[in-house]
Amino acid sequence: MAQQHLDPTDPRSGHVGPAPTGEALAGYLRTQATEFLRALRLHRETGAGAHGSEGSAEAARALRRSARRVSASLHTFQSLLDPDWCEAMRPELAWVSGTLAMEHAYTARLERLLTALHRLSGSTAFPAPTSAGVGAAAPPSKAGAPAQERGNLTVGAAKAGALLDRQLTLARTRAHSTALQALGSSRFHAIADKVAVLASEVPLARSATGTDLRPLATAAEDRLRDAVTTLPLVTAGSPYNAAALIHGLSPDTVPHPQDAPWHQVRLLLRLHRYAREAVSGPKGNAVVDLRLLSAGQALNRHRDASEAAAAAAQAARTPRIAPATAYALGVLHADQRHEVEAARFAFQQAWQKETVGAS
Amino acid sequence: MAQQHLDPTDPRSGHVGPAPTGEALAGYLRTQATEFLRALRLHRETGAGAHGSEGSAEAARALRRSARRVSASLHTFQSLLDPDWCEAMRPELAWVSGTLAMEHAYTARLERLLTALHRLSGSTAFPAPTSAGVGAAAPPSKAGAPAQERGNLTVGAAKAGALLDRQLTLARTRAHSTALQALGSSRFHAIADKVAVLASEVPLARSATGTDLRPLATAAEDRLRDAVTTLPLVTAGSPYNAAALIHGLSPDTVPHPQDAPWHQVRLLLRLHRYAREAVSGPKGNAVVDLRLLSAGQALNRHRDASEAAAAAAQAARTPRIAPATAYALGVLHADQRHEVEAARFAFQQAWQKETVGAS
Repeated sequence: MAQQHLDPTDPRSGHVGPAPTGEALAGYLRTQATEFLRALRLHRETGAGAHGSEGSAEAARALRRSARRVSASLHTFQSLLDPDWCEAMRPELAWVSGTLAMEHAYTARLERLLTALHRLSGSTAFPAPTSAGVGAAAPPSKAGAPAQERGNLTVGAAKAGALLDRQLTLARTRAHSTALQALGSSRFHAIADKVAVLASEVPLARSATGTDLRPLATAAEDRLRDAVTTLPLVTAGSPYNAAALIHGLSPDTVPHPQDAPWHQVRLLLRLHRYAREAVSGPKGNAVVDLRLLSAGQALNRHRDASEAAAAAAQAARTPRIAPATAYALGVLHADQRHEVEAARFAFQQAWQKETVGAS
Repeated sequence: MAQQHLDPTDPRSGHVGPAPTGEALAGYLRTQATEFLRALRLHRETGAGAHGSEGSAEAARALRRSARRVSASLHTFQSLLDPDWCEAMRPELAWVSGTLAMEHAYTARLERLLTALHRLSGSTAFPAPTSAGVGAAAPPSKAGAPAQERGNLTVGAAKAGALLDRQLTLARTRAHSTALQALGSSRFHAIADKVAVLASEVPLARSATGTDLRPLATAAEDRLRDAVTTLPLVTAGSPYNAAALIHGLSPDTVPHPQDAPWHQVRLLLRLHRYAREAVSGPKGNAVVDLRLLSAGQALNRHRDASEAAAAAAQAARTPRIAPATAYALGVLHADQRHEVEAARFAFQQAWQKETVGAS
């Protein structure tokens, strides 16, 4: 499987023409660095207010997106880059994308859980969730909107919704402050300066110029494929296997140990996808990319549902809640664990297609 | 679809040879009546003790089985039988099988819920569930066995298990007494006397002797097919559609309105299966019967999971329970609603096979 991707005549290598070398990598890194700086400028222009705007949320997403790609390239193609620079840069980029991701994660988690509560209550009046990223936070408490709809919920569901709203809005507000502090810190300015240098001058290792990128990209793909073989895909491909809810009532459900290999595959799939981009350019092979995207989306959904289920379980441990609230949170937890199971099924289906297509 | 089953040369009509007439129906009813009397005798021989035995449970099952078949035949082939006799007999047989079914239902429900709780707790120490029917009840409280395993459960799961054990064991004990009273009642003796007459002399209508049974059996099949067309089978056939848990937190979940058409199909499928038996004899067409059986088993599982989910929701309304107990019952409720969804998927798969096979 790995060898065939070394064949430059194989269209599935994502590359047609002469072998991509360090120069292609440098071009990819320059593009991503430029994108990072563009997003940063946009964010500063749009994100002046306390709660930001739609534009600044988009800017924050673009910032994370380019930071992830630069970071992934530093990981996959490390041997072609200046090792000291790589070692200094990678944790800084991880800090940026991790810090910026938190507010969005809490926002999305709350929306996911409130949407689920309304679905579970059979409410049809729930509006389509709105998304907000860093710098584009809605007012700290969203209690206004859910309160209006709470008339459609049972007491337990309404109280569970209010509890989750309180807890996740608090977490989101904190994440918002943390992200704003981070963006104004000298640490972040130092990173932005380094990215500005990267946009014009990529610190390639001496050997990089004539070196084929593809063996390194293939190694990233192999790490993904190896990790996928450790997943219980036969179980996942059998609908209603009830595997995700096993241990659903065991004391150590946060984080759920059985989810870890799936989270790992999610990260490796992302590294593989970005390595393909670096090798072939973003429009290299749209068909296979679409498959990778749908597999990746299933794993994103897996991660989101896993964390939402954990948040419901966590909320149920709040002291002095009413039994009806705890009951609703139990139903919600199980619902999200079934979403985890559904996401694994979706990944299995997407991955199977990919394997069939590539063999 | 219906018409093709009228063709006597079609092996799928379940009959080969001359058309089955009222005589075949009389033979079927005599066989079932004889089976009823045999089971009753066995039950009296084995069920003397307070808690009965494995043999008396088997006898009770056989009693219900033959009562259901006689009752179904009276329904489907009513026009071939003495109308007054039919009208007097059917509610009596329904009372017998309904009364005898309750204890078994509570036993099975408790086992299903405790098994699920152990699965949800990740406990591997749970023994295979044992079944007990009427007259073969375990000692009224099974608290002994679960208590030993409760060490593997969280506090919430253990308390939820204890609560369900208490509530369903009480219900089962009452059902056991009711069944014993019923079997000793003059009402039951009158029914047994009528069945004894039926074993030798079936009150056929005058027209029955030369009348083909198959149009009536086909009508039963048509009623089933019509009812199936009202089911949301496209949704059911799409895994993880999350339909069964909609309204899972709405106040009127017991009984769940969306389950009713499935329960109705379950009854019609049974009527169809028994009508086939009467027409073709119990070994008439093993292949199609196997398909019907698997569709029927899916609907049994649907019914069981639906009622177990309702029992968990009901238990959660017990006053003054701890939040951890309520949370575990919420998880359990959602788990059983997903079992409902899984059973619908299984029915859709079985039914699809059947339709493909019959077309």
